[in-house]
Amino acid sequence: MAVASPPTQDIETLAINTIRTLSIDAVQAANSGHPGMPLGAAPMAYVLWTEFLKHNPRDPHWPDRDRFVLSAGHGSMLLYSLLHLTGYDLSLDELKRFRQLGSQTPGHPERNHTAGVEVTTGPLGQGFGNGVGLAMAEAFLAATYNRPGHEIVDHHTYGIVSDGDLMEGVAFEAAAIAGHLKLGKLIYLYDQNHITLAGSTGLSFSEDVGARFDAMGWHTIAVDGMDPEAVRAGLGEARAETDRPSLILARTTIGFGSPKADTFGVHGSPLGPEGVAATKATLGWPSEPAFHVPDEAAAKFREALDRGAEAQAAWRMRFDAYAEAHPDLAAAFTAALDGHLPAGWDADLPDYQVGDKAVASRKASGEAITAFAPKIPFFIGGSADLNTSTNTAMKGAGDFQHPGGDAAAQQGTTGGGWSYAGRNVHFGVREHGMGSAVNGMAAHGGVIPFSATFLPFSDYMRPAIRLAALSKLKVIFVFTHDSIAVGEDGPTHEAVEHVMSLRAIPNLTLIRPGDPNETVDAWRAALANPGPTTLILSRQDLTVLDRSRAKGSLHHGGYVLADVEGPPDIVLIGAGSEVELCLMARDTLAEHGFRARVVSLPSWELFEAQSAGYRREVLGEETTPRLSVEAGITLGWCRYTGSRGGSVGIDTYGASGPGSEVLAHYGFSKEHVAAEALRLLGRDDLADQVEPPRDGGDTAGEEATGSEGHS
Amino acid sequence: MAVASPPTQDIETLAINTIRTLSIDAVQAANSGHPGMPLGAAPMAYVLWTEFLKHNPRDPHWPDRDRFVLSAGHGSMLLYSLLHLTGYDLSLDELKRFRQLGSQTPGHPERNHTAGVEVTTGPLGQGFGNGVGLAMAEAFLAATYNRPGHEIVDHHTYGIVSDGDLMEGVAFEAAAIAGHLKLGKLIYLYDQNHITLAGSTGLSFSEDVGARFDAMGWHTIAVDGMDPEAVRAGLGEARAETDRPSLILARTTIGFGSPKADTFGVHGSPLGPEGVAATKATLGWPSEPAFHVPDEAAAKFREALDRGAEAQAAWRMRFDAYAEAHPDLAAAFTAALDGHLPAGWDADLPDYQVGDKAVASRKASGEAITAFAPKIPFFIGGSADLNTSTNTAMKGAGDFQHPGGDAAAQQGTTGGGWSYAGRNVHFGVREHGMGSAVNGMAAHGGVIPFSATFLPFSDYMRPAIRLAALSKLKVIFVFTHDSIAVGEDGPTHEAVEHVMSLRAIPNLTLIRPGDPNETVDAWRAALANPGPTTLILSRQDLTVLDRSRAKGSLHHGGYVLADVEGPPDIVLIGAGSEVELCLMARDTLAEHGFRARVVSLPSWELFEAQSAGYRREVLGEETTPRLSVEAGITLGWCRYTGSRGGSVGIDTYGASGPGSEVLAHYGFSKEHVAAEALRLLGRDDLADQVEPPRDGGDTAGEEATGSEGHS
Repeated sequence: MAVASPPTQDIETLAINTIRTLSIDAVQAANSGHPGMPLGAAPMAYVLWTEFLKHNPRDPHWPDRDRFVLSAGHGSMLLYSLLHLTGYDLSLDELKRFRQLGSQTPGHPERNHTAGVEVTTGPLGQGFGNGVGLAMAEAFLAATYNRPGHEIVDHHTYGIVSDGDLMEGVAFEAAAIAGHLKLGKLIYLYDQNHITLAGSTGLSFSEDVGARFDAMGWHTIAVDGMDPEAVRAGLGEARAETDRPSLILARTTIGFGSPKADTFGVHGSPLGPEGVAATKATLGWPSEPAFHVPDEAAAKFREALDRGAEAQAAWRMRFDAYAEAHPDLAAAFTAALDGHLPAGWDADLPDYQVGDKAVASRKASGEAITAFAPKIPFFIGGSADLNTSTNTAMKGAGDFQHPGGDAAAQQGTTGGGWSYAGRNVHFGVREHGMGSAVNGMAAHGGVIPFSATFLPFSDYMRPAIRLAALSKLKVIFVFTHDSIAVGEDGPTHEAVEHVMSLRAIPNLTLIRPGDPNETVDAWRAALANPGPTTLILSRQDLTVLDRSRAKGSLHHGGYVLADVEGPPDIVLIGAGSEVELCLMARDTLAEHGFRARVVSLPSWELFEAQSAGYRREVLGEETTPRLSVEAGITLGWCRYTGSRGGSVGIDTYGASGPGSEVLAHYGFSKEHVAAEALRLLGRDDLADQVEPPRDGGDTAGEEATGSEGHS
Repeated sequence: MAVASPPTQDIETLAINTIRTLSIDAVQAANSGHPGMPLGAAPMAYVLWTEFLKHNPRDPHWPDRDRFVLSAGHGSMLLYSLLHLTGYDLSLDELKRFRQLGSQTPGHPERNHTAGVEVTTGPLGQGFGNGVGLAMAEAFLAATYNRPGHEIVDHHTYGIVSDGDLMEGVAFEAAAIAGHLKLGKLIYLYDQNHITLAGSTGLSFSEDVGARFDAMGWHTIAVDGMDPEAVRAGLGEARAETDRPSLILARTTIGFGSPKADTFGVHGSPLGPEGVAATKATLGWPSEPAFHVPDEAAAKFREALDRGAEAQAAWRMRFDAYAEAHPDLAAAFTAALDGHLPAGWDADLPDYQVGDKAVASRKASGEAITAFAPKIPFFIGGSADLNTSTNTAMKGAGDFQHPGGDAAAQQGTTGGGWSYAGRNVHFGVREHGMGSAVNGMAAHGGVIPFSATFLPFSDYMRPAIRLAALSKLKVIFVFTHDSIAVGEDGPTHEAVEHVMSLRAIPNLTLIRPGDPNETVDAWRAALANPGPTTLILSRQDLTVLDRSRAKGSLHHGGYVLADVEGPPDIVLIGAGSEVELCLMARDTLAEHGFRARVVSLPSWELFEAQSAGYRREVLGEETTPRLSVEAGITLGWCRYTGSRGGSVGIDTYGASGPGSEVLAHYGFSKEHVAAEALRLLGRDDLADQVEPPRDGGDTAGEEATGSEGHS
């Protein structure tokens, strides 16, 4: 192309303006997007990507690459420009298709969609938290696998974060985690432009951000973000600090060069053709053609290819030396990166026998973890301050803490000492930060992360769960205390709508096991699932169910647990702790001459993955009434019960009281289940025998949900 | 009762130990609960409740009372002890029934359940945010209604917050809002005991909390929380500071007096009979009887009755003088407290005509707000930095800001100046803080608060929405950009599961209007609803629908919008922006000789409130196939479509592209809806005519969801 480069620009300015003009041209072509951020953040991005970031555009999966997170995902064109220019597999044509259906350049960066995009960002604050998780994974892998003279894991996590990011609670939580853990290799450039979508940050954001991060144990540096030299110095200083995460407060001008620079008008709307032209004129850029990349700029950015190839080759040599010196470790490291579970990892999982004492599924889960955790050295995680309640501590696996951590504060730790090689993570009462951090850990690779808290608090981390599902990250979200059976803590702590609300999230596998053995199988399924899994576990003890007559297992999602000879009169479908109620009601029904099949349906997603024929076989003929029984909302259950079916559930909030009383109050008794089944069978007379109508005055049972007839 | 009081205790110690022993006795009786917090926080609670808190136990609804929030709701027995002792309608017998079914003393404090409980707490951080909202409402009412010499609104908001509270992101966000707004009458005692449920705070909580709050514009004071005199001085200092919210960092000993003092073992488990006995011995307390209240202590606490009555009487006199001087204002104030909408408030709402240009429901909503906001002076709210996108700014209604706020920063404001009498609140990019703040505003009374953001970000504020619903708070949560029609922003910003996940929350009324006129009616319904409402609005323009044949309106939740002569062949059920698709598909079906009824179903909750007969009439005979059409997940729709029905929906994530293309790609076209209807009618042959199967290579439509046959 014969367009001359602006003659007066040095290579640095030229390269920076290339990022800027590509970005505004793409936004303009799409007539949609955020031009302001790339215009202001281009200098810092340029310095980071050409001088500091260790990466190989030809191999975006090189394990020891630095990670880069664009937390301000709305500035996606900044990232796409960098990826294209430095030589990733992202063509200029794709930049021209910004925000078009089927392009590799969606409105916000998406992992698994565009080469070089480490995490999916856009919902503010999430990228900030992901970066903390990325840095945690790096610290863990370095502490676990490096050996003196053999640094095979040694990379940084960089990010660009925005005013909006830093207002989000999840970023505060994640910052607290990072500060506590002293993650010295985490470096964020804060694009401090003082403008948000709705106006000046003075409208709502008047805190001293630097002081806030100082208070949380961060290293903070203020620089002029429009001056590459200042950014360079800041990044150098941040790299030199190894004991604290760094926040570089880079003062920038949003929409730099455009007529609307420094105003919120430039945040989230295209500049318009005149605005683009005016901006290019200000930048000394030819107005035509659009998407112009001067050869000198291209050459400058493409230096990343040689530098990346050299860096990766040097690493490969180091790794080979390591593999020779430490063959077992090298093999273990490779297996961890591949996520290969070691042979025999599940050989010694608990196997509960009928007649054993009842065990809460959270406890059975804890016993499973105790059995497999020593065999899967890359299984790492923890809870939001509920280790003892969620039964997720791995005894003897050490605490994931800065090795210089306050040893006097080790009350409540899990044994094994404090170091970055510890596998028990203490997230604090920070569910959302936990969720975004485990997502980052999974995105890093080399670990299988898990989180844990009480089920009602899944709401606190829901945005992170959604992103795990959208990005298909292998994270295991453990939620215990799963229903009104929690009892005394009352409605704030009693999940009612949560299980169904989690089932609502696409790509998320939810498993709510019905007894201790299903719980063990749930862990097998979760560890085999390439995507995210939620495990929904009980606080209360669950009887070990007799599965001698079962025609399937948890791995089918749903299966016949107890059948009858010939076609059943009714099918009782239970999930989780309510499966046992179904078995008990089945006996009551038998006393009245009705033959009930009991189906255990611990996972809708696994069940839907079976053949239609299998599902039909399990659920029985459409003409046979079906009753679902789950201590949660009835919404959605009609999927399996059909319009002739019914549901025993709870469509209100729970109440505070001993768990067994609360359950009975809301109709989770074998009598109520049997009575509802009899009503579905048209035998209200028998139903009233089984569950006599109550006298006035006694409130128990008043709230019991009836068989939900569907309109 | 003949039990002598411990002779050596001064009245202060005696009173403090009364709180302590009542609390541990109740936890022990329930064999469930958290004894540690009341033991450590009793001194500060005693000083606050007996010397600072302005309240009248005989009238818990006195408008000018101070508000008290126990954000650390797990310490509920602390609050119940105070309520009982100071003379609220909460008997000792109820304390003995702590955590029992049907008692007034549930595990965590519940608004509307126990006299004197201002907000429901337990999920950590929420109370912190509620307190910010309570203080915002006070500031607004004071600025709006007070006049020189007439201070009819002048009260403080106090709270006790815990380590756990302060780790939660929602507390950070709310703290940022409070600091920015300089809410000088907000005073929190921070029960800094350095212990959480899982261990020492050193495990995960190493930030400098005081510095963190300083950075966010708070006034911070450190005191010895075990020393009443120090607490007294701290509270006095906090009261003297009028331009910043205050955080009193009160160092305490969790479980003070118990054998497990200062350990996490005392946080969340009963002490056991021996532990209770040992604690009482340490405190110099008689071991029997349980629930012992020395007469002197009772008398001391009951001074609140006289003091409260006097304070309220003095306020009544001030109010009478005010009413005489400013009768209109006094009437307006009373109407605001009662939540009475002024006559004619909805007289001038927009009325869109068929043939008018299409209007996005977010815009129609904005036009409705513009019409009614001037008439409802106690309607107040704003967005999480999305005023311009959510169309929720009230022009000319002023900005809710500290009057001394940075005038230079007024870019993007809504006109009318900065003051506490402004009604446009700028929450910043803090959805969760916004949710907890509007809950607090509603709990305060005298205002109808609303919030606004994009629908996918409802996830960020879900814990607050749940508490609004549980507490039946009158809050209006506005969510715009409601489906994949958002288009270019891509899957992170495209709601798919959110509408159904919100429908899942008990007590929450969700309205997803289908055209501009339904949108106006949705505001009518929301403002009439005594509980919380979510309004789900489109980004894209919606045609004004012809309702000349409608047999009902939005207020029925669902109604026949277009019917046929005689029984229909099929019923198409649309919600929100998809209602128009149903009308278009109806025409296509008519061309093929099939008669379709179209039902608009904007609100399941309002529909369920109608008689069964009405619902049946709308939905038609069970034998008539029904097809639901909504740009969201299909889960749950079987409730209305039955097992012979089907659903057009989207059960995967969306994609980035122009909205109309994205919609078509996922099957939201009249052709696809008509084709699915024809398939339900057994006419696959005609369906293939209407929507020809695509050739390979063209990906559009590949993702179209079929008619979801239910197993």
